[in-house]
Amino acid sequence: MLKIVKGGVTTPLGFRASSREKLALLFSPVPCRAAGIFTTNALKAAPVVLSQERLKSGVAQAIVINSGNANALTGKKGLRDAELICNRIASILNLDSNYVLAASTGIIGKLLPVKKILSALPQLADRLSRKGGSGAALSIMTTDTFKKELAVEIAIGKKALRIGGMAKGAGMISPNMATMLCFLTTDAAIEPSALKGALKSACEDSFNSITIDGDMSTNDSCFLMSNSLAGNDTIKQGTEDYKKFVQALSAVTIGLAKMIVEDGEGSTKFVTIRVSGARNKADALRVARSIGNSPLVKTAIFGADPNWGRIASSIGASGVKVKEKDMSISIQKRTVFRNGSPAKFEAASLRKLLKKRDVDISVGLNSGAAKASLYTTDLSPRYVRINSSYPS
Amino acid sequence: MLKIVKGGVTTPLGFRASSREKLALLFSPVPCRAAGIFTTNALKAAPVVLSQERLKSGVAQAIVINSGNANALTGKKGLRDAELICNRIASILNLDSNYVLAASTGIIGKLLPVKKILSALPQLADRLSRKGGSGAALSIMTTDTFKKELAVEIAIGKKALRIGGMAKGAGMISPNMATMLCFLTTDAAIEPSALKGALKSACEDSFNSITIDGDMSTNDSCFLMSNSLAGNDTIKQGTEDYKKFVQALSAVTIGLAKMIVEDGEGSTKFVTIRVSGARNKADALRVARSIGNSPLVKTAIFGADPNWGRIASSIGASGVKVKEKDMSISIQKRTVFRNGSPAKFEAASLRKLLKKRDVDISVGLNSGAAKASLYTTDLSPRYVRINSSYPS
Repeated sequence: MLKIVKGGVTTPLGFRASSREKLALLFSPVPCRAAGIFTTNALKAAPVVLSQERLKSGVAQAIVINSGNANALTGKKGLRDAELICNRIASILNLDSNYVLAASTGIIGKLLPVKKILSALPQLADRLSRKGGSGAALSIMTTDTFKKELAVEIAIGKKALRIGGMAKGAGMISPNMATMLCFLTTDAAIEPSALKGALKSACEDSFNSITIDGDMSTNDSCFLMSNSLAGNDTIKQGTEDYKKFVQALSAVTIGLAKMIVEDGEGSTKFVTIRVSGARNKADALRVARSIGNSPLVKTAIFGADPNWGRIASSIGASGVKVKEKDMSISIQKRTVFRNGSPAKFEAASLRKLLKKRDVDISVGLNSGAAKASLYTTDLSPRYVRINSSYPS
Repeated sequence: MLKIVKGGVTTPLGFRASSREKLALLFSPVPCRAAGIFTTNALKAAPVVLSQERLKSGVAQAIVINSGNANALTGKKGLRDAELICNRIASILNLDSNYVLAASTGIIGKLLPVKKILSALPQLADRLSRKGGSGAALSIMTTDTFKKELAVEIAIGKKALRIGGMAKGAGMISPNMATMLCFLTTDAAIEPSALKGALKSACEDSFNSITIDGDMSTNDSCFLMSNSLAGNDTIKQGTEDYKKFVQALSAVTIGLAKMIVEDGEGSTKFVTIRVSGARNKADALRVARSIGNSPLVKTAIFGADPNWGRIASSIGASGVKVKEKDMSISIQKRTVFRNGSPAKFEAASLRKLLKKRDVDISVGLNSGAAKASLYTTDLSPRYVRINSSYPS
């Protein structure tokens, strides 16, 4: 039912994109219902402030993206710069200026090269194309080693709907540029509240379920635009169609989130942490996050060391009420701790299993029915070298 | 007024200590008023559970300490083992068994070598001596590279009082053994509530103001015992004498806490993070902790990189409400961000200053009068190597 198709943000009907060096433009020929989820960092970058404000209308038609400069900690001038750029695009494309959003990633605390950006905008608008998606996915990269794009197709009623997305990575892969950006497009007709709800759900199990190093950027942004061109019956919240849409959107966001973890420079492992038996999902994620952010757990994984004591200690340190006697832990599907007692396991063979790229840590809390998965990396000496020698 | 004197836990009148391999015993010939502060990890080690329970009486006379095995995640058997050892010491020394406490540090999830420990206890009791403090400080070390002890003398009225302490380090220096243990002794006469209050105050500005890697152990414990042998007028909370006592106790705890940071293996820097202008002290510490636990900030410091954008981003990510326009940041006393605007600084000379062992990061929030200092280390490739190659 859910089909992975070729392409990214320009796969849904109507969407076009273009790119030039470190700039990208995403555009829909008709106004879109739009929603965004942004960093909770108290020091939000100018493009975040601008996009949050403009998204109050729930409508957008274009997003201007630049990489290399975060336009963060740049005060009022930074905000004016972002407005200037968006408004210029609006005037070139003849759009309501409130329909143009912005996203930036790069170094913090430097003003944007506004003149340079403004002079590139006409060409950026000229080049808008259905085939521009991959170029845009490439141009938003900072230290990413591969472009991250994904698209799916589903059927709602008798209509085919498409959802496309592109993202750039965060944390380990981007020293000064610890920013996660994601752009999602769809030609589905969907009610505004359903659009927002679907984005929130889809982010929860994906971008909010990965951690590289626990650092939260000033610029993290995830946008979803729907232009209704598929002509389906409008999707309403709580319906079967809505469920299908959320599932499809989640397939895109989880796919992109996993690509971000895959691309963790300095990382040698893809780690999945599964927590089950929690009282609620927030608790499950909190436990998973405490394990996934622990430098001691991450270095043990790098060293292929089945050091479950560090995992246990992180579980206890999470702030969630857990009971030793109810707790179980397994590493690479081998039980190492069961119902409060250390389990016998063959250390040598578990060490060998831990040398694989994919590492699975499963924790059972036995205090409820909620569960969560978190994706993360190990912590290698290379991470430290990359992040200590990056020119600021 | 406050005099640093030679010695550690056995400097106050009456206290004796002994050690043997990985065991230590701390003892007062008369029952002490005693208080403890313990890890908030939900999975508390057996010695923590036992000591917390026994300290409800507010009286203690001895502490048995072992290193090499944390007796954590060991269930009911672990608790019985800890009780057995404490009760045996009580019987050898002819004490009320409720007056004997326990502390452990070492590997998680293995049962204590009880027989071996029990057979060593008589000798441990035999060897108790006024001169045993340094030996005890040595024997509680795990991967610490130097023993951590400190003692001070103050005058209260016409009487001289002594406070002594010893500690072992945490985190970076102790892969499987990420435990902070601290033992404080005093011959001061002090009311039980004042004793508890003083310990809490003194821990706040010291052990609760250091971070190595953000990991919280199952075993962290800090004990304070006072035997009243100095013969001073009993110190009461809220008095001038109380203030003097807290100041002296804090000198010991801050001194020991700094030694723990100094001894961070793999670390190349001693970093002091000062946050001022916060609405309250908790906020100030939260901001400092967010900076001090950020891998991106820590790796930048390792690389002598004046990357203030990472510091700013960590401030914003702390969860404390901060305003860009009110914020200032300086590194090695050079202002890099002032009242919401990047400040001009000579990057080359700041890089040079950052090559010093002592690094100072100061943040002004300009939203209140509260402040806090946090002590931490950098993050080096050696930290990762040490922690990934440690045998579990």
